Amino acid sequence: MAFDHREEHVDTGMLIIQANLDDMNPELTSYITDKLLEAGANDVYWIPIIMKKGRPGVMLNVLADEGKAGELEEVIFSETTTFGLRYVRADCHRLGREFILIETRWGAIHVKAAFHIGRMVQFAPEFKECEQAAKKHQVPLKQVYDEVRRLFLERRGE
Amino acid sequence: MAFDHREEHVDTGMLIIQANLDDMNPELTSYITDKLLEAGANDVYWIPIIMKKGRPGVMLNVLADEGKAGELEEVIFSETTTFGLRYVRADCHRLGREFILIETRWGAIHVKAAFHIGRMVQFAPEFKECEQAAKKHQVPLKQVYDEVRRLFLERRGE
Amino acid sequence: MAFDHREEHVDTGMLIIQANLDDMNPELTSYITDKLLEAGANDVYWIPIIMKKGRPGVMLNVLADEGKAGELEEVIFSETTTFGLRYVRADCHRLGREFILIETRWGAIHVKAAFHIGRMVQFAPEFKECEQAAKKHQVPLKQVYDEVRRLFLERRGE
Amino acid sequence: MAFDHREEHVDTGMLIIQANLDDMNPELTSYITDKLLEAGANDVYWIPIIMKKGRPGVMLNVLADEGKAGELEEVIFSETTTFGLRYVRADCHRLGREFILIETRWGAIHVKAAFHIGRMVQFAPEFKECEQAAKKHQVPLKQVYDEVRRLFLERRGE
Amino acid sequence: MAFDHREEHVDTGMLIIQANLDDMNPELTSYITDKLLEAGANDVYWIPIIMKKGRPGVMLNVLADEGKAGELEEVIFSETTTFGLRYVRADCHRLGREFILIETRWGAIHVKAAFHIGRMVQFAPEFKECEQAAKKHQVPLKQVYDEVRRLFLERRGE
Amino acid sequence: MAFDHREEHVDTGMLIIQANLDDMNPELTSYITDKLLEAGANDVYWIPIIMKKGRPGVMLNVLADEGKAGELEEVIFSETTTFGLRYVRADCHRLGREFILIETRWGAIHVKAAFHIGRMVQFAPEFKECEQAAKKHQVPLKQVYDEVRRLFLERRGE
Repeated sequence: MAFDHREEHVDTGMLIIQANLDDMNPELTSYITDKLLEAGANDVYWIPIIMKKGRPGVMLNVLADEGKAGELEEVIFSETTTFGLRYVRADCHRLGREFILIETRWGAIHVKAAFHIGRMVQFAPEFKECEQAAKKHQVPLKQVYDEVRRLFLERRGE
Repeated sequence: MAFDHREEHVDTGMLIIQANLDDMNPELTSYITDKLLEAGANDVYWIPIIMKKGRPGVMLNVLADEGKAGELEEVIFSETTTFGLRYVRADCHRLGREFILIETRWGAIHVKAAFHIGRMVQFAPEFKECEQAAKKHQVPLKQVYDEVRRLFLERRGE
Repeated sequence: MAFDHREEHVDTGMLIIQANLDDMNPELTSYITDKLLEAGANDVYWIPIIMKKGRPGVMLNVLADEGKAGELEEVIFSETTTFGLRYVRADCHRLGREFILIETRWGAIHVKAAFHIGRMVQFAPEFKECEQAAKKHQVPLKQVYDEVRRLFLERRGE
Repeated sequence: MAFDHREEHVDTGMLIIQANLDDMNPELTSYITDKLLEAGANDVYWIPIIMKKGRPGVMLNVLADEGKAGELEEVIFSETTTFGLRYVRADCHRLGREFILIETRWGAIHVKAAFHIGRMVQFAPEFKECEQAAKKHQVPLKQVYDEVRRLFLERRGE
Repeated sequence: MAFDHREEHVDTGMLIIQANLDDMNPELTSYITDKLLEAGANDVYWIPIIMKKGRPGVMLNVLADEGKAGELEEVIFSETTTFGLRYVRADCHRLGREFILIETRWGAIHVKAAFHIGRMVQFAPEFKECEQAAKKHQVPLKQVYDEVRRLFLERRGE
Repeated sequence: MAFDHREEHVDTGMLIIQANLDDMNPELTSYITDKLLEAGANDVYWIPIIMKKGRPGVMLNVLADEGKAGELEEVIFSETTTFGLRYVRADCHRLGREFILIETRWGAIHVKAAFHIGRMVQFAPEFKECEQAAKKHQVPLKQVYDEVRRLFLERRGE
């Protein structure tokens, strides 16, 4: 039933690349996030901050493998308004992962489960699949989530 | 000793003028705040918000007397990037105020006290005067604050 | 089984009482929240804002019935550092509510359900009871939540 | 050249519908925003807030015409986890609008201009069109914006 | 009079353990904070962030000694919904500390003072003791703080 | 025409000095920022965070060369209320810089341009000069910005 699998592991040599932006049009943020993910970033997130003269800026954070830094810099310098970057080193501990297919009254939906030292510690319905089911069948998205979670727990309990 | 006085009162007919900004350079915010205060706003503050497509925008809030709305609109439309405004009605309860002069080892500094139904409920050293004293005498600003507060409480207790 | 019930209704004549605080020790916030709830506030929440000179302040918001305004003012002026308040009028639409008791392997836990025009639209396990069960039985709190939700859905589906 | 036009006006009888959410999966926010815009909301935005017990919640804000309240409530109660809503009355001042087509080296892109008492006070390149041009021609999005703005100003100056 | 003492020092080999959460019920945060402090964390704090698809998430930050990482991971994976963690190395400079007992009209309250190279740079009344005194004697909490600070400064000045 | 120049480079051995503040008067932030910049900090920014007991605190961040740490510590311990500091190591990539003077109808204004591997990737009108021109000539600040940007692009295109 599982169609994907990844072992728990730690990635050393990761970078958090940061840039503080106090003069950028916020409309650009979602586009920049997508560009960075396409260019190989593992994760992209924005932190609201207060900069010099009390300006409400944002700090761009890009988590990436050290080997990807050159390509990501290229995107950051081209697409944002920053004059510089910071690199902070980080190690990343990633849980083992498995995808399980759950049959629901709105079709089959995957659940992503995560394992720590062999024990399942997380499970989460796939957002996009729930969203599509909610739209197609005109049911509240939260109801789809709840039902997938319920069915997953039920099956697991058997 | 008091050189200024104002009675506790409620101002009805106030407006909170709001504009959501998702495409404005944040560098402009402090300049806009100053412009609006000069044009007669009672208060100006910014709230970090999340707008369409997850954009990290800011909401401008201008508290003002209804009669000032025209002039403030003029500033908002000229200086920000907004295509519209919202008006929310509000009543403002303002405490009675009095300024008291406190002698410190760094010179005299005013304390602003506030009264609710005749009882003193607040007192605050004047920021600018503390800041000037801290700079001039090279002492930590927090130390100036603490000392002004201590002297005020001591005197009041006599 | 239901031990409490309330019909869906709209409360008109509610107030949102607001105060912007740029010189208050943030340690005080939780104490002030509790004091206001004890004094009859329906809800209390804090919004991070940016005030004059770029100061990272907070806006206190107190939702209350108009008749409670006097007592709440007393608390706000006594416990915060504000020199004034704003009142914004609001109407509040509250869903019908019912509490249902669910038997779990960690004891009985209530679920609070809400109804809109007779249809159940929300259900939420009681936080405090889940927390106590998690502590007593040394299980993850999220697992208790998930299980209560699962059992509630199962029972409802029968 | 203009293909759309709207006069400056004030809409009275608008509502800001608010719901504080401290127990909702944040994944749902973008879906809910889209649902509310489809159901007739004029604007949807989220404010990070701090709720009881220091919980980092969000406040949903929906700006809408009073006549749409029923449909929007339906969406809010179905898709979020709230047990109640607040309505705050607002008037909305909307600028006059006009769309102008600008020819660029990457194709034609619209600029949305806004007018206050007959004077142009805002102009903004259409985000989606700039984004498409940037993707198609592999140029930085900010460069497309800058160029559209430059051409608009140049033409206007003639 | 001092009943506790700690010398100023730098702890090297500390970790900031971080997890970005975009699908967790915010109700869980205070419980998780307590669990992590019990499990040996030096500090726990949450940063509001904007994640993929503009989701308003939170970043959990846990400051801890490297040797505690295993136990804290266990709590984070069990109690939050994260699929991974980041470790960032940090050194921590901690000031020398001393507790001083101050007699007030509401009973004795401790002040925590901090020293940098032998000079006292901070002093702060103990929150819990001030809170208890305020509740017991029905005085505003800010008044208790102010009085403890005043008495501490007075005594120090002698 | 260029009167200043700096080559693109990476500064290794930088520190991000952090302090979480949950009991400091927010009025002090702008003063502290200025003090730290005077004492040699490369950048200073504040992040809104949620601390123990749900307190809405701020995290001070000071980016600096390792050699400046002692002086900056002195300022942080003297001017803030913190009992400790964290140091996180960072490398900083700074773009090459050049200042170009642009003649406008409101006088000459500098544009700061930045270069990555010889290619110009950023350009930004100097905020203070735009602000002065806007005040002196009574034009909207955003109009001054737009015009400087337009003239810079025009000249560059020649």
